[in-house]
Amino acid sequence: MTPLIEYADAPAEVRAVYDDIMATRKTDYVNNLWKALAHHPPTLARTWERVKTMMGGAGALDAVTREMIYIAVSVTNNCEYCIATHSAAARAKGMTEEQFGELMAIIGLANETNRLANGYRVEVDERYR
Amino acid sequence: MTPLIEYADAPAEVRAVYDDIMATRKTDYVNNLWKALAHHPPTLARTWERVKTMMGGAGALDAVTREMIYIAVSVTNNCEYCIATHSAAARAKGMTEEQFGELMAIIGLANETNRLANGYRVEVDERYR
Amino acid sequence: MTPLIEYADAPAEVRAVYDDIMATRKTDYVNNLWKALAHHPPTLARTWERVKTMMGGAGALDAVTREMIYIAVSVTNNCEYCIATHSAAARAKGMTEEQFGELMAIIGLANETNRLANGYRVEVDERYR
Amino acid sequence: MTPLIEYADAPAEVRAVYDDIMATRKTDYVNNLWKALAHHPPTLARTWERVKTMMGGAGALDAVTREMIYIAVSVTNNCEYCIATHSAAARAKGMTEEQFGELMAIIGLANETNRLANGYRVEVDERYR
Amino acid sequence: MTPLIEYADAPAEVRAVYDDIMATRKTDYVNNLWKALAHHPPTLARTWERVKTMMGGAGALDAVTREMIYIAVSVTNNCEYCIATHSAAARAKGMTEEQFGELMAIIGLANETNRLANGYRVEVDERYR
Amino acid sequence: MTPLIEYADAPAEVRAVYDDIMATRKTDYVNNLWKALAHHPPTLARTWERVKTMMGGAGALDAVTREMIYIAVSVTNNCEYCIATHSAAARAKGMTEEQFGELMAIIGLANETNRLANGYRVEVDERYR
Repeated sequence: MTPLIEYADAPAEVRAVYDDIMATRKTDYVNNLWKALAHHPPTLARTWERVKTMMGGAGALDAVTREMIYIAVSVTNNCEYCIATHSAAARAKGMTEEQFGELMAIIGLANETNRLANGYRVEVDERYR
Repeated sequence: MTPLIEYADAPAEVRAVYDDIMATRKTDYVNNLWKALAHHPPTLARTWERVKTMMGGAGALDAVTREMIYIAVSVTNNCEYCIATHSAAARAKGMTEEQFGELMAIIGLANETNRLANGYRVEVDERYR
Repeated sequence: MTPLIEYADAPAEVRAVYDDIMATRKTDYVNNLWKALAHHPPTLARTWERVKTMMGGAGALDAVTREMIYIAVSVTNNCEYCIATHSAAARAKGMTEEQFGELMAIIGLANETNRLANGYRVEVDERYR
Repeated sequence: MTPLIEYADAPAEVRAVYDDIMATRKTDYVNNLWKALAHHPPTLARTWERVKTMMGGAGALDAVTREMIYIAVSVTNNCEYCIATHSAAARAKGMTEEQFGELMAIIGLANETNRLANGYRVEVDERYR
Repeated sequence: MTPLIEYADAPAEVRAVYDDIMATRKTDYVNNLWKALAHHPPTLARTWERVKTMMGGAGALDAVTREMIYIAVSVTNNCEYCIATHSAAARAKGMTEEQFGELMAIIGLANETNRLANGYRVEVDERYR
Repeated sequence: MTPLIEYADAPAEVRAVYDDIMATRKTDYVNNLWKALAHHPPTLARTWERVKTMMGGAGALDAVTREMIYIAVSVTNNCEYCIATHSAAARAKGMTEEQFGELMAIIGLANETNRLANGYRVEVDERYR
């Protein structure tokens, strides 16, 4: 495991990101991913900037839908860290257990049918090209 | 490519599924995936039954959200057939181009951050276990 | 696409592999993968040696089962080349259409349940650790 | 980790599935996957129905071959839960250690050659299209 | 396929990115990926900014090594577009055919050994945790 | 977890591989992967032979670059064992923390852009085919 860089030990550029995470999320907690990315400050800053904008900024998709899309990718890739944290985030933003159940079922279905399409080598219909 | 089984050449159990697809979708078109799966009727019947219920039945998620989850999986797995057909389905059900753009951006982001979490081997925070 | 290296243009070390492929398979046909790998003769030689032994040599699994395992991996990874060639190989070695249908169905099922286990973050039962 | 729903706490529709699992498998043990899926009873019921039929019902493939196909997918996707439980299932149904060793070796080989075919962008031979 | 947005038809914010791509790369050619991403200008701008900095800016890794890392990911994921364009980029920046051959061989090896480690469920050595 | 086969309990053909690992690496430590693969001696011998040659032998790529390519694959596949051991190996061979940070950032970028290319279904430019 990568050792985590705590606020007290972080250089100024890292503290600035931690401060923005806490201010944006209205919390005093910075989760482990950021404390690991702090080993490479440009990656920390770039990643946070994009997560802040793309998961939390204004846009055409609501907050829960964004989280569910994120979870669909993370479950398909089996990223335990991302599944755990974004399932919590989705619930905090209002995802119900019924919605979570349907989300998982559709993720499973798509992973199955993707392979049926692969295995049967199905040509894309003229009208969908 | 798997040769497609057309309605005229299909046995009764396959025709029954084709009929249900066309009736459910209010169309006279059966897309290629089903005509390929028709080589193994139990797979055809089981897969259609689940797609019909899970993508189109009543539930806690709206139809466009379901399609976007499906697309998130298919893009992550790079199933060209599924991306093409479900992007069309999502648009037919009301997904805007702005939503499609955000969907793609979040899929990209999650695929990136999944690997940052993997590569740094970040331990799941106590509170998210 | 990588240009293919034909027998007439191949150096001696590549020709030796092509000769062994044709002799082992009792055919005068060398398929495209080998003609592409010929750009890096050590990879060509090492890969053929292993395919020859592991797919064709003596062992505890019969030839069709080996091909079906190979197909299960290739469909999951969506390697079109490998799906096409090994589906043909499996059929040539005796796989029936009914077996192919069941193979695809199980590949689909496992790809689905893998994600259900991921998404629900299911702990391995004590007895299966 | 998803909390597991034990029999004593399960609603009737979930108990019915647990009962069928135990009866089908002739055991009094229900493994963790099902106790996690119980959070969404339709997914529990649909998944069990398919696993029961496709892994255990009559068909053209023997029970050990089915398990090995399942393992090939699970290892490729790195689903620890599925690898652990289905390796145990395969052994219980008669897979020998020699067969397991060959299974792993072929899974490794196919994962390698899939990438060689991808990386060299090898066109599918006319005869295998 | 997504229709491509040509310079003549592009809005000002898209033209600004195309101009920067051509200036940075000292070419009058903009490749298809950018002309497809132009459908969602924020994704176009963010992606180009990062590719420009991370693949072309100053840093601790030389340009060919960066391209080879990029190719290793793309081959593992089987992204044909990315393999084709970045193999060309790597060669333009100096990658030799011998290096390409070794790159492919190591990508194949790692994809194989990843599965051996998965399938045998090997615990990380104390010293490497 | 697969039980590890220690030197004292290993048959002669396994000991020979362990001896070669220790001699090649100038260490008295054999890491867990090999002790697990020892359950299938042909896989142990073949895998070690290839790792020895391809990661450590003479060639056109330097040792750190080879390890970084290996890590790029392992992070993309999320093989924890391989990430842990090869990150250690790369550092032992001279990879700096700055290089590791850039490696992770490029792996993340490529995993993202691979999906943008997939999702927008971008046709390969004529000149890169």
